[in-house]
Amino acid sequence: MRKIQIGIVGYGNIGRGAVNVLASSTDMELKAVFTRREKDSISVGDKSGISFLPISSAEQMTGEIDVMLLCGGSAADLPEQGPYFASMFNTVDSYDTHAKIPEYMASIDAVAKNTTSIISAGWDPGPFSMMRSLFRSILPNGKTYTFWGKGVSQGHSNAIRRIKGVTNAIQYTIPIDSAVEVVRNGDMPDLTPGQSMVRECFVVAEPGADKAEIEASIKTMPHYFAGYDTTVNFISDDDFTANHLKMLHGGMVIHTGTTGGNACGNNGEGMNYCTCGSPDNEKHGNNHVMEFSLKLDSNPEFTASIMISYARAAYRLSREGSFGAKTVFDVPVSYLSEKNRLDIIKELL
Amino acid sequence: MRKIQIGIVGYGNIGRGAVNVLASSTDMELKAVFTRREKDSISVGDKSGISFLPISSAEQMTGEIDVMLLCGGSAADLPEQGPYFASMFNTVDSYDTHAKIPEYMASIDAVAKNTTSIISAGWDPGPFSMMRSLFRSILPNGKTYTFWGKGVSQGHSNAIRRIKGVTNAIQYTIPIDSAVEVVRNGDMPDLTPGQSMVRECFVVAEPGADKAEIEASIKTMPHYFAGYDTTVNFISDDDFTANHLKMLHGGMVIHTGTTGGNACGNNGEGMNYCTCGSPDNEKHGNNHVMEFSLKLDSNPEFTASIMISYARAAYRLSREGSFGAKTVFDVPVSYLSEKNRLDIIKELL
Repeated sequence: MRKIQIGIVGYGNIGRGAVNVLASSTDMELKAVFTRREKDSISVGDKSGISFLPISSAEQMTGEIDVMLLCGGSAADLPEQGPYFASMFNTVDSYDTHAKIPEYMASIDAVAKNTTSIISAGWDPGPFSMMRSLFRSILPNGKTYTFWGKGVSQGHSNAIRRIKGVTNAIQYTIPIDSAVEVVRNGDMPDLTPGQSMVRECFVVAEPGADKAEIEASIKTMPHYFAGYDTTVNFISDDDFTANHLKMLHGGMVIHTGTTGGNACGNNGEGMNYCTCGSPDNEKHGNNHVMEFSLKLDSNPEFTASIMISYARAAYRLSREGSFGAKTVFDVPVSYLSEKNRLDIIKELL
Repeated sequence: MRKIQIGIVGYGNIGRGAVNVLASSTDMELKAVFTRREKDSISVGDKSGISFLPISSAEQMTGEIDVMLLCGGSAADLPEQGPYFASMFNTVDSYDTHAKIPEYMASIDAVAKNTTSIISAGWDPGPFSMMRSLFRSILPNGKTYTFWGKGVSQGHSNAIRRIKGVTNAIQYTIPIDSAVEVVRNGDMPDLTPGQSMVRECFVVAEPGADKAEIEASIKTMPHYFAGYDTTVNFISDDDFTANHLKMLHGGMVIHTGTTGGNACGNNGEGMNYCTCGSPDNEKHGNNHVMEFSLKLDSNPEFTASIMISYARAAYRLSREGSFGAKTVFDVPVSYLSEKNRLDIIKELL
């Protein structure tokens, strides 16, 4: 069977993750990585067996690549690369600037006339978004919480690295257990970001740097750390290399909702009755908790894994003539699987 | 806006749950409950505002009902009622005899020529199945576990009630914490059912009954309790009524998978290299854990909530001319929501 031919645009963390994940795929194979980098800047190990090409050469390969994984960043790369590639190829990306998604989607939809583009298919946006919508559809009388972590925030890590006297740094976002427990118990609290998560920092300082000053600079940094319970740990370069190179991440979507209470009460004939099984005549209704969680050793490889499963879907939708910009809300789960629909029904339903 | 008109077939636990859930729906309303029961056998409270009709009258109401929720049992009711109603109405059911699903689906598909029927849309089969397929598609190099509970098993409760000297009984299936933790840690063990869950029974005995004999009869019952760690608690009738009427349930689908290790190793130029960030040159690859869990106060009301959200989808698919038997694998998540697609994209992606 001919394998689905995949192109990767951009060779950053997610692009590299996609190369790693595709190495064990049974129904897809990597055709080429398109990058702006000079070939000499790519490490020797990575070069074995991979075809690195300049981005400008992609437009001559429309017949050879079934789906392009757009692995560039949401700020600068995708607003330009998304529409450019979607006009020629089926594409999948993990565009994650939440506020600008409708605008980005429209720019893709306008050009994807004979191609299929699935946008924002990382994990949030991605399956986390699917769960938020699924949970609310099932239990509309409820409240949804998203917790991120434990995981590395590149933005916060970079912000620390810009502080004078810091040679390296990493920041972990960690959900507050007690907040998660309150939500899981169905209490539906209002939580500020600072009440949902703490920030833990590991910093390598220059010899002789003023650590107290670095710590204060971090903890008071507006938008990034002010308002959060922030811990700063100074560690050695060796400790950093041994324990803090993994780009781990994770999180939870928790939805709590109520059913049935409205149907209990007075039946209009002066009689109180209960349909929900409540033993306490004051409190009617049933609570339900739905939860989806992820614990990831490698954020880029997991993000790439999702994009690759949606690449399978983009390829199939495109062959069915279902063109234009799509999201995780539009794609049936069966389209993501290597198995055919009847086997999924037989084996997994 | 005209509300989606819902019919309910069958007035057991799920039918009653559907009545309760529809009472607070904003875009659907209950048209009628179709039942084999004599009207006099329905409790007074339930009758207020609900139209109870004999099942035979449904065929005259094809123009008045948009979707029929088939709330009968999988053993005797649905094999007959499924095809009968699917030939005339859009339907949703929670058919759960896993081994016979393909056969059941074919019997529906054969008659649903101008109607849309979504089968097996409870929670397992249902969202649990969706998760199994989604998780495997994203992380094909992995293993999936389903744990059920803490929850009431009607089958096991009934089996205890048949024992001589027992007046009432309930059985809770409870996942074994240590087994769940091993799975969450990514260890991928092989687990028998008895290694995954324990069975806890609460029994009301007749005065003077031989409790030791009842306990032994339960613990040694083949298929139901033999091979499980089973606890039997004898309680009073009052205790039973106060604490054991809720039909609570829940469970977890946990999938652990690995990515990236295959891309690490020897690049063919005699050089070991690592792409996964492993600090230990012996162990490459990254582990990821995906988990979906439910904690339900009322199994019937939650099951009905899912069926109702899929009724919305069946209605929409039918209006688009997408007829035949469908499953949770075939329905995009956006079809389940009361919101329109662009609002979901804007608010939840």
